[in-house]
Amino acid sequence: MFEAAELGRKISKQEFKDAEVTLRTDLLEVQRALRTAGFPVVLIVSGVEGAGKSEVVNRLSGWLDMRGVVTTSFWDETEEERERPRYWRFWRTLPAAGQIGVFYGSWYTQPIIQRVFGEIDEADYQRELTRIASFERMLALDGALFVKLWFHLSQSAVERMFRKRDKRERKGLKSEWRTNPFSKKYAKRYEEFARVSERAIQITDLGVSPWHIVEAEDRRYRELRAGQLLLQRLRERLAHAERQQNGDTPPVSPPVAEPGEALSVLSRVDLDASLDESSYRKRLKQLQERLHELTLIARERKRSTVILFEGWDAAGKGGAIRRVCASMDARLFRVIPIAAPTDEERAHHYLWRFWRHLPRAGFVTIFDRSWYGRVLVERVEGFAAPAAWKRAYLEINQFEEEQVEHGTVLVKFWLHLSPEEQLRRFQEREQTAWKKHKITDEDWRNRERWDAYEHAVNDMVARTSTTSAPWTLIAGNDKYCARVQVLSTLCERLEAALLPPQT
Amino acid sequence: MFEAAELGRKISKQEFKDAEVTLRTDLLEVQRALRTAGFPVVLIVSGVEGAGKSEVVNRLSGWLDMRGVVTTSFWDETEEERERPRYWRFWRTLPAAGQIGVFYGSWYTQPIIQRVFGEIDEADYQRELTRIASFERMLALDGALFVKLWFHLSQSAVERMFRKRDKRERKGLKSEWRTNPFSKKYAKRYEEFARVSERAIQITDLGVSPWHIVEAEDRRYRELRAGQLLLQRLRERLAHAERQQNGDTPPVSPPVAEPGEALSVLSRVDLDASLDESSYRKRLKQLQERLHELTLIARERKRSTVILFEGWDAAGKGGAIRRVCASMDARLFRVIPIAAPTDEERAHHYLWRFWRHLPRAGFVTIFDRSWYGRVLVERVEGFAAPAAWKRAYLEINQFEEEQVEHGTVLVKFWLHLSPEEQLRRFQEREQTAWKKHKITDEDWRNRERWDAYEHAVNDMVARTSTTSAPWTLIAGNDKYCARVQVLSTLCERLEAALLPPQT
Repeated sequence: MFEAAELGRKISKQEFKDAEVTLRTDLLEVQRALRTAGFPVVLIVSGVEGAGKSEVVNRLSGWLDMRGVVTTSFWDETEEERERPRYWRFWRTLPAAGQIGVFYGSWYTQPIIQRVFGEIDEADYQRELTRIASFERMLALDGALFVKLWFHLSQSAVERMFRKRDKRERKGLKSEWRTNPFSKKYAKRYEEFARVSERAIQITDLGVSPWHIVEAEDRRYRELRAGQLLLQRLRERLAHAERQQNGDTPPVSPPVAEPGEALSVLSRVDLDASLDESSYRKRLKQLQERLHELTLIARERKRSTVILFEGWDAAGKGGAIRRVCASMDARLFRVIPIAAPTDEERAHHYLWRFWRHLPRAGFVTIFDRSWYGRVLVERVEGFAAPAAWKRAYLEINQFEEEQVEHGTVLVKFWLHLSPEEQLRRFQEREQTAWKKHKITDEDWRNRERWDAYEHAVNDMVARTSTTSAPWTLIAGNDKYCARVQVLSTLCERLEAALLPPQT
Repeated sequence: MFEAAELGRKISKQEFKDAEVTLRTDLLEVQRALRTAGFPVVLIVSGVEGAGKSEVVNRLSGWLDMRGVVTTSFWDETEEERERPRYWRFWRTLPAAGQIGVFYGSWYTQPIIQRVFGEIDEADYQRELTRIASFERMLALDGALFVKLWFHLSQSAVERMFRKRDKRERKGLKSEWRTNPFSKKYAKRYEEFARVSERAIQITDLGVSPWHIVEAEDRRYRELRAGQLLLQRLRERLAHAERQQNGDTPPVSPPVAEPGEALSVLSRVDLDASLDESSYRKRLKQLQERLHELTLIARERKRSTVILFEGWDAAGKGGAIRRVCASMDARLFRVIPIAAPTDEERAHHYLWRFWRHLPRAGFVTIFDRSWYGRVLVERVEGFAAPAAWKRAYLEINQFEEEQVEHGTVLVKFWLHLSPEEQLRRFQEREQTAWKKHKITDEDWRNRERWDAYEHAVNDMVARTSTTSAPWTLIAGNDKYCARVQVLSTLCERLEAALLPPQT
């Protein structure tokens, strides 16, 4: 979930200055439109301790016309608040229609901290999160616009910051990085916070109130990005309201513009990795034998496995799937290719066609393309309405959670390759008689939408890569390398599930 | 919640026969329209053991064109089902677009039984219910129409049925009432089942998938009602779909037609009760002294009280409120009259104006009219869109639950009177100089909509009278009687909260 916010995004002083001028003007313009539009905006500023949330709030205050903004921070409950039902303190601070409520700390803060420090158990925590979801859904259905920002720092970034601060302090210099007395206490629990926060984001990432995870290491990036996300969401909503008045059908929303160089999780995949043929043969044999063994153990222990493959056209899904299949007893698995749905499938909820193919205990189902079509091709090509694909992230997370809860080992692959390598393969296919059928006009069309797809892939990983069902991004420029990565990931995941480390 | 289904509704053989002819024709007609409308219907048949659910399913099968119906009953899980994630068995049986899926037993059955017999704890049960809510919401947002029927029998009805059966059996006669081996085991836990089921209905009574509680003692009534509810909901949806195609705005939905005499919870209020003046004076004094004492204890123990009054115009809300206030230290309470919202209130969610007035610990807030305006005047007069007031039941239940969880004593009064007595009072007001201002054209207009309001009151009680926040219906024809009832109810509720019985 957080991997899409650990890409090292940063922007220069000059870029910031240039962007800031436009952004401020634009923000003031949408604020004017908001005043008459008649809905409230709830902007939540959350995230890792030390990620500069306070500075973001200050920066936004500088940019916005503060006559239409109410900023609220939640520290300790006051006596007045303690004497009333818990949510009273939140209700009293909700912005009115036409206003922007900036929440530094929110209904999320206390449950997350209580869970990390073990003051509430997992069941209570989950109950709290579903209460939050129903609170936000209620306000959103009433018209409120939610902009929820989660400022993320990687563990190494946090450590770097502490080292930097300590070094400056030893020299008697003041640190530019502001910390509070809790920072160190929280930083020590980084992993715990990450796990608990992931859960919060997962359960409350509603179509009507989605989260945006913002990479927070670079101050200029995070502040600009916060402003731009607020601007973008406000513009979308104002345009939507206008279209509704004019009776037009809303078109697909444009992707949120990123400040600086647009980075996605895919930019971090090392496509230069390669493997020579003899090493490949050797490694392939080892891994296939190991996988064979593991799937038999899984059969015996009645643990099911679901493997899904997504990826660019010509990235080598077919070849990888064949190597996986060749490792297993033919009775153990089924490959389900996902193309256009059948009539019967079309007459059901889009998840129905996947539910029906879930494997029996101990068996393996391989999906060649999957339920992620909803947030990839259907999103990019406009086959699904924005409201439909936006709520699909939550639906997919719940679907996968039900599988994992049941004990299924769920492995998700995205096969990546460079546009250049794709072009080479397309051309090769066109020139090879027995590969010609594999390349169609549609492949060329999809290729033209590379950026839109890459953006959708990044969102998909950010919203659906969870601890229990993570995405594995495979470097596919070198086919040998890709297949070995797929097989070794499968072996690792099965080993972790079937042969937990001895303690 | 169940009191609206304990009114002794029944219909005669002839009425049934007459209604059946029309109903069957109408059902076949909507089924034909459904085939091309492209959405699935999920009909859930649930309720108290012995309420004739199986017969209802059979009857519906007789009425409908079975080519478009899939009936599913859930008994034990099969091996196939146990080997997959829990909801697989439900997904595989979901109806396709154009079909009606009749579920005898459903995703509700197992959690309710497990909770009653203590196999799962309250937190797990609640988790299960929110999972159900999100499952149904997902399907409903995708277009599915949910018709959820809960067949209710009062505890005395269940006991009557057992006695009748035992008597027939002693005479060697076959009982017409079919029971299964579990019936007695379940009947013994009647109260437990009622409490647990109420919770299920409360949490899953979504605007997009509402419950209908059907009084089940009379076989003809329950079967006709089931058919009519299915018909009504299908017609509403088909009309809605048609309007959307034609771009009209949907008007307020007409109330569901009841077979036989239309009964509401109000029909059970004994309006003949009366009290002579000297008994009233004596009782009033006692109760006011007791209430005075109790509110001081509540202050000391920091328990808050919220009292709300709804009722017909001229039913005596003002007089009752004055007697309540006269019982208390003036520093302890505030009366909040709810009229048209202020500008500021209008700029927020409709619950905001009530949240802001919740009392501090140990204090009392009296609402003269309340958040129930949403499902009363706003529903009947069309001020709120159907989708908005339909989802308000759940929002209100959650709002009240937050208060009760906090420890607030919440007391809800509906002041009832007969239309004749109301007329008398209206006329009296018009003829009395110092009462003239109390009667307006609006009062006369509301009076004309008596039936629509009575229907809305019945729905309100059915959906929001919960164990922790029950409605008290006050007989208001006799003012003395009404005030004594209000005060004694308040004393009882406070005593129960503050002075729990010694064990």
